[in-house]
Amino acid sequence: MSYSPKRIAILGSTGSVGRQALEIIAADESLSVVGLSAGANWKLLAEQAKTFDADAVAIADPEAAKELISILSEGTDLLTGPESMNDLIWQVEPDMVLTAVVGSAGLGPTLTAIKCGADLAIANKESLVMAGAIIMPAARKAGINVLPVDSEHSAIFQCLIGHEHKDVHRVTLTASGGPFRNKTLDQVEHASLDDVLKHPTWKMGRKISVDSATMMNKALEIIETHHLFDLPTHRIEVVIHPESIVHACVEFFDGSVLAQLSRPAMTTPIAIALSYPQRPAHPSAPLLDLAETGALHFEEADTQRYPALELGYEVVRRGGTAGAILNAANETAVEAFMSGRIEFGQIVGIVEKVLTETPIKTEIDLETILATDNEVRQRTEEIVIGN
Amino acid sequence: MSYSPKRIAILGSTGSVGRQALEIIAADESLSVVGLSAGANWKLLAEQAKTFDADAVAIADPEAAKELISILSEGTDLLTGPESMNDLIWQVEPDMVLTAVVGSAGLGPTLTAIKCGADLAIANKESLVMAGAIIMPAARKAGINVLPVDSEHSAIFQCLIGHEHKDVHRVTLTASGGPFRNKTLDQVEHASLDDVLKHPTWKMGRKISVDSATMMNKALEIIETHHLFDLPTHRIEVVIHPESIVHACVEFFDGSVLAQLSRPAMTTPIAIALSYPQRPAHPSAPLLDLAETGALHFEEADTQRYPALELGYEVVRRGGTAGAILNAANETAVEAFMSGRIEFGQIVGIVEKVLTETPIKTEIDLETILATDNEVRQRTEEIVIGN
Repeated sequence: MSYSPKRIAILGSTGSVGRQALEIIAADESLSVVGLSAGANWKLLAEQAKTFDADAVAIADPEAAKELISILSEGTDLLTGPESMNDLIWQVEPDMVLTAVVGSAGLGPTLTAIKCGADLAIANKESLVMAGAIIMPAARKAGINVLPVDSEHSAIFQCLIGHEHKDVHRVTLTASGGPFRNKTLDQVEHASLDDVLKHPTWKMGRKISVDSATMMNKALEIIETHHLFDLPTHRIEVVIHPESIVHACVEFFDGSVLAQLSRPAMTTPIAIALSYPQRPAHPSAPLLDLAETGALHFEEADTQRYPALELGYEVVRRGGTAGAILNAANETAVEAFMSGRIEFGQIVGIVEKVLTETPIKTEIDLETILATDNEVRQRTEEIVIGN
Repeated sequence: MSYSPKRIAILGSTGSVGRQALEIIAADESLSVVGLSAGANWKLLAEQAKTFDADAVAIADPEAAKELISILSEGTDLLTGPESMNDLIWQVEPDMVLTAVVGSAGLGPTLTAIKCGADLAIANKESLVMAGAIIMPAARKAGINVLPVDSEHSAIFQCLIGHEHKDVHRVTLTASGGPFRNKTLDQVEHASLDDVLKHPTWKMGRKISVDSATMMNKALEIIETHHLFDLPTHRIEVVIHPESIVHACVEFFDGSVLAQLSRPAMTTPIAIALSYPQRPAHPSAPLLDLAETGALHFEEADTQRYPALELGYEVVRRGGTAGAILNAANETAVEAFMSGRIEFGQIVGIVEKVLTETPIKTEIDLETILATDNEVRQRTEEIVIGN
């Protein structure tokens, strides 16, 4: 059988998820690369564009663009500037866009991909947290697939294939508990960035490592789960699972639970999103040996002990701009911690303060979301400075 | 929305699975009972027929039939004799037949259900072990659904819904390890029937409790898995899982594993088979709380330590009448143990001896299978007596 490979654009191709996605594509002839984007790493971007014979690349930083142009292969177009990711999508018209950029920068291109009719593989969780209520209806209207790349949401997605939404009693997201699982936030109030980056099971970027230690990452995932799978808060639970082997469970009303398991590596969820609805073998996906694993442990995720979790539920209940507020406050507070301006133990408190004090708008569009994002960052910065 | 309830016939309605099925049907208005059968328990059968307003009942024992006729409600027909289960199916023309009888007696009615165009909910594992190679092609040809009721096969079935056979790398059946998990067969050679019936997680009938202790139950399940899901031996694994919460896993080539979990109770798999493709709430299905469960353990199922397992694989590799030989030898040997004529530790050795010594026919039909069953029972009985 002969067929055209799926044409993929990767936004954030020089980051951890982007690089793993390219490894998967390199080993799978049913997948091809048509566009790539990066923030500033022009050297790696040029190399990737050459290896994968990309039609076009986008780089946000104009200085990096100047370096890039001199070494870019002929036949690969270069786009630059703040709108370059959107321009890239319109130019290459991919079958699928993988959004692997970090932070609120991913939101605009996510909406552009939908407008362009491309399927979405979403690794940029901030876009869903900020604007899931815009993205999901737009995706449904456009008839495109939204494939989650986050391991927990990929797990829910896989457990739901072939099953009906109306039969879902609840979904359970697992949380490793992060590096401070056996400590309270009080005990780790003065934890250093080095301590935070020592994650027991996952190798991740810095921002998500901090979110994992505060449990804010799971709060964001509660919000994503709500949007991706159209579930209210009482159908979304979190359980601590230190081994990070079971990524999520779906319990049906008949008492049966489906769970998705794999070794804690992003390869599997990335591959599944890129190849959907196919499930080809991926040589780099590590196999799971349950007997070798020995035991899987589960404990309650106490919202008293992990106050960030409660913020996730609160955002779902309030809706509107609440997700954008939480996300902007958290990104700003995490940044302040990473640059040594606040203590680790202050992050969640600052986010909670901002979420409580900021008026929530219920009618939302992209403009409102971006304006909220901007205002909340300033407001959070003021709190950090006044601290 | 108004619709006709699914019309179900239960073969073996007075046994453990039959009674649980009736509880589920009583609580679900989308399910109804049209026919019931029992071996000899005429009192309970009459009660069930009245409660569920069955069109007809079948009872094999003519003496029991005489008692039954006097108390059976008007409007419920009575069938008796060795062919009464087949007659029942032809008479009531059900949408689904639940085969919950124990042993080889279930094979004929299973084939009758297929001829009659009824979906099958199979709790009678012997029929698949003996004649899966006849049942499955006949079911495919007739276009009927075959729903496994065994918890492990229900788990595989559920994990495969919406997924493709070609993407399956392997399935893993879990085994609790039975009451003698930390002992070798040598150590439990002289175990009593009482010891054997003390199963740690499942409450089951006597024959299956013995099979669970010898691990022959898992050998039978390997053979069932092969037939139900068309998988060769190298795609079927067994892992010891003492908690009996994870019932089976399906691993795909992309490295992802789906597992089905539920508390060790037959309610869930029975309900799923009866209601398929719907998944209504079943009030009697116990919910799973992973945090309360605490830990799930897994260890290798060593075929050296559990020689019965290897017999399961051997039967799949050899095909033909091998399944009928294994099943007849095992039923006879278990019977001999339960009546105190052989030691617990002799069961597997006798079955192995019979399987090794009996010529296997590769061309099979129902007649050959039943003749083999008969011959092997005699041959096994001779070994038991000569012992």
